[in-house]
Amino acid sequence: MSKTISIVEDIMSANDQLAAQNRAQLDAHGVFGLNIMASPGAGKTSTILRTIEAITPALRVGVVEGDTAAVTIDADKVSAAGCPAVQINTGGSCHLDAVMLAKALPQMPLDELDLLIVENVGNLICPGAFHLGTHANVVIASVPEGDDKPYKYPNIYRNIDALVLNKVDLRPYIDFDQEYFERGIRLLNPNAAIFPISCKTGEGIEAWADWLRAKVK
Amino acid sequence: MSKTISIVEDIMSANDQLAAQNRAQLDAHGVFGLNIMASPGAGKTSTILRTIEAITPALRVGVVEGDTAAVTIDADKVSAAGCPAVQINTGGSCHLDAVMLAKALPQMPLDELDLLIVENVGNLICPGAFHLGTHANVVIASVPEGDDKPYKYPNIYRNIDALVLNKVDLRPYIDFDQEYFERGIRLLNPNAAIFPISCKTGEGIEAWADWLRAKVK
Repeated sequence: MSKTISIVEDIMSANDQLAAQNRAQLDAHGVFGLNIMASPGAGKTSTILRTIEAITPALRVGVVEGDTAAVTIDADKVSAAGCPAVQINTGGSCHLDAVMLAKALPQMPLDELDLLIVENVGNLICPGAFHLGTHANVVIASVPEGDDKPYKYPNIYRNIDALVLNKVDLRPYIDFDQEYFERGIRLLNPNAAIFPISCKTGEGIEAWADWLRAKVK
Repeated sequence: MSKTISIVEDIMSANDQLAAQNRAQLDAHGVFGLNIMASPGAGKTSTILRTIEAITPALRVGVVEGDTAAVTIDADKVSAAGCPAVQINTGGSCHLDAVMLAKALPQMPLDELDLLIVENVGNLICPGAFHLGTHANVVIASVPEGDDKPYKYPNIYRNIDALVLNKVDLRPYIDFDQEYFERGIRLLNPNAAIFPISCKTGEGIEAWADWLRAKVK
């Protein structure tokens, strides 16, 4: 048992060392790194596309897409929006780690970017345990997932800088107690900024984009 | 690298051995085991509650609830529905395995059950890799997650016996191409039964319950 623990510690330490190197590389190029985590289907790519629409060309954006399979659906959408995109295929693994991001960074034109968005694998558990070297962590939740998710999947919310609540356009059709949801977030993380948005209608995107612009500059 | 692979193989082999023991224990008591997997918020617990409503008291149901945290929200709902429920708190781990189920089985009144439903941790990736010893695997998808999920998270769909598509009541408000979704499932798994349902309205529950009754008997 103690051997298992020491192996886990070694892995995390190696990951953290590589995360620090990723951070240094981003800093050397003046690039702000944003790690986006969410459950499958919360709207990570839709939010990234709305964000690109709001902040480019004033800010120059690149995207690293983490996927468990070889499909390039998301990377293709980002490329079509005019931003450089690289896909990391984790080969079935359930999260990105600093090693994977370190391999992707040389493929991005860092000198020509202000913001690098990393779309993590769709998973509310594992991605929260691995530093990538990015400067901020964001979780995208969505109304149809239900208001109890902060209570059921607490770890992912503890170290985030902002929480985006997507699909608020569906509130008329779903029982979702926003006060209960936000109380759950606040219990875990009193300082996270919370942004209700709808990628379908555009509601709330500007407030989220303002927060991000202030972080990047 | 070869050493890493051999360790992974040993773990899976140990898990499979325990899964076979779980299966033998269920068989000895005449209990059918059903492993339910899904993304967070797809409606696993809601579907279980609708299923209990449809098939009890003709069939006697017990539920094992897998959670990553110590909250008993789901187990409490199942208990309130009149069925024995046990919670497995994985302590942050992203899936159930056969060891965890082996510890839960002695806490269930197996002699008094026809069906044991195991609600796996909300995750579309990791649970698919661990046999539990149950007799059938089901994935619950939901309309708001999007029609591209079989293409993005293929592994979880490969070995399932049925696919439940929940929240079809939201179709008028969401772009969801059901033909594209079902084609993705069929590519991975031509034999899985597909059941569109709404836990909110009750639509489709009876067809799903019929399938399950035929399996259990």
